[in-house]
Amino acid sequence: MSRPRLLITSGPTREYLDPVRYLSNGSSGTMGCCLAAAGIDRGFEVTIVTGPVAIEYPKEATVIEVVSTQEMFDAVLEIWPSCEGLIGAAAPCDFRPLEFSESKIKKSADFDALQIGFVPNPDILAEAGRRKTASQWSIGFALETENGRANALRKLQRKNCDFIVLNTPAAIDAQESRVEILDERGEVVDSISGSKRQIAKRILSLPV
Amino acid sequence: MSRPRLLITSGPTREYLDPVRYLSNGSSGTMGCCLAAAGIDRGFEVTIVTGPVAIEYPKEATVIEVVSTQEMFDAVLEIWPSCEGLIGAAAPCDFRPLEFSESKIKKSADFDALQIGFVPNPDILAEAGRRKTASQWSIGFALETENGRANALRKLQRKNCDFIVLNTPAAIDAQESRVEILDERGEVVDSISGSKRQIAKRILSLPV
Repeated sequence: MSRPRLLITSGPTREYLDPVRYLSNGSSGTMGCCLAAAGIDRGFEVTIVTGPVAIEYPKEATVIEVVSTQEMFDAVLEIWPSCEGLIGAAAPCDFRPLEFSESKIKKSADFDALQIGFVPNPDILAEAGRRKTASQWSIGFALETENGRANALRKLQRKNCDFIVLNTPAAIDAQESRVEILDERGEVVDSISGSKRQIAKRILSLPV
Repeated sequence: MSRPRLLITSGPTREYLDPVRYLSNGSSGTMGCCLAAAGIDRGFEVTIVTGPVAIEYPKEATVIEVVSTQEMFDAVLEIWPSCEGLIGAAAPCDFRPLEFSESKIKKSADFDALQIGFVPNPDILAEAGRRKTASQWSIGFALETENGRANALRKLQRKNCDFIVLNTPAAIDAQESRVEILDERGEVVDSISGSKRQIAKRILSLPV
């Protein structure tokens, strides 16, 4: 009998403005890596869809490398139907430049002040949530600078998640973190301060 | 007698839009690291001003960590008067967002399409070039997608460099590279295809 499959998104994505410059964030893939290890420990066959990171994922996991949010979206939605659970630990850029410049944007001549238009990226977890069957579960992350619980609950609802893990920018590229886990009614079912390994273990023991 | 001091800039810089998102590029610091090693081999006391990278610089070098281009600019101009040579191997963002949002820009409500204004950053090497004394020398890098030699020569002139190293985006985060070195008259004085270690050695043996 095959093991249940767990899909984890991890790391940042990059949205290139030109061949050199991109929009991104400091996500290191540490949480995704810890979740993969915890998932393997619990008997899952783990697939990680990851943006560009320097981290080494557990060798038992299948790792799919992507760059942009659109690529992460496409990869996740292809794999999702064959999985039991999805944890969205990635920090995909939620907007991308309206246009990509094939040649490097020159600083000198081209502008005193440059305006760049951005458009929203598709929401990976929301689309996976829409396609979720009764036997599937999903857990999201919300990184908030203010109104944490209210924003997190709205995110859980929009993304149709079973649980959502609330943290702050202090978690980015850090080994330790402080999170709250909210359920569908907005209740705080767990509150953890510790290493990302400890947090990952607790996330994997949620009653999904 | 104290050893001559060599200042190297290395890695990317980051320009934050909000507490999470930033503009950057894929520079890994590999070339800066190889230049530091080559400089140490030639008897220099090496100081590296570096943006956020995962690389480990030679332990004999003094490493100053910065995030934004303005910070790199400030650090370089403070140290420059006490140095003999400067090699600008960093890929500092040459523009930054006009405004920084203290709270994370929300995707959902705030926009269908977002316009972000960018303004030029100060030019680190150009300012160091302006302040260069007769006993100091500087070497720049030009990463060009087209009209390579012409753009590189213009950069050398604007930055008042002694030599400029011309490469392409293929060099970013790569171990090997292919470069041309131009002098003040725009003549190609060296053309190297090889590891960044080999390239760094050849740069350090230029007749400055």
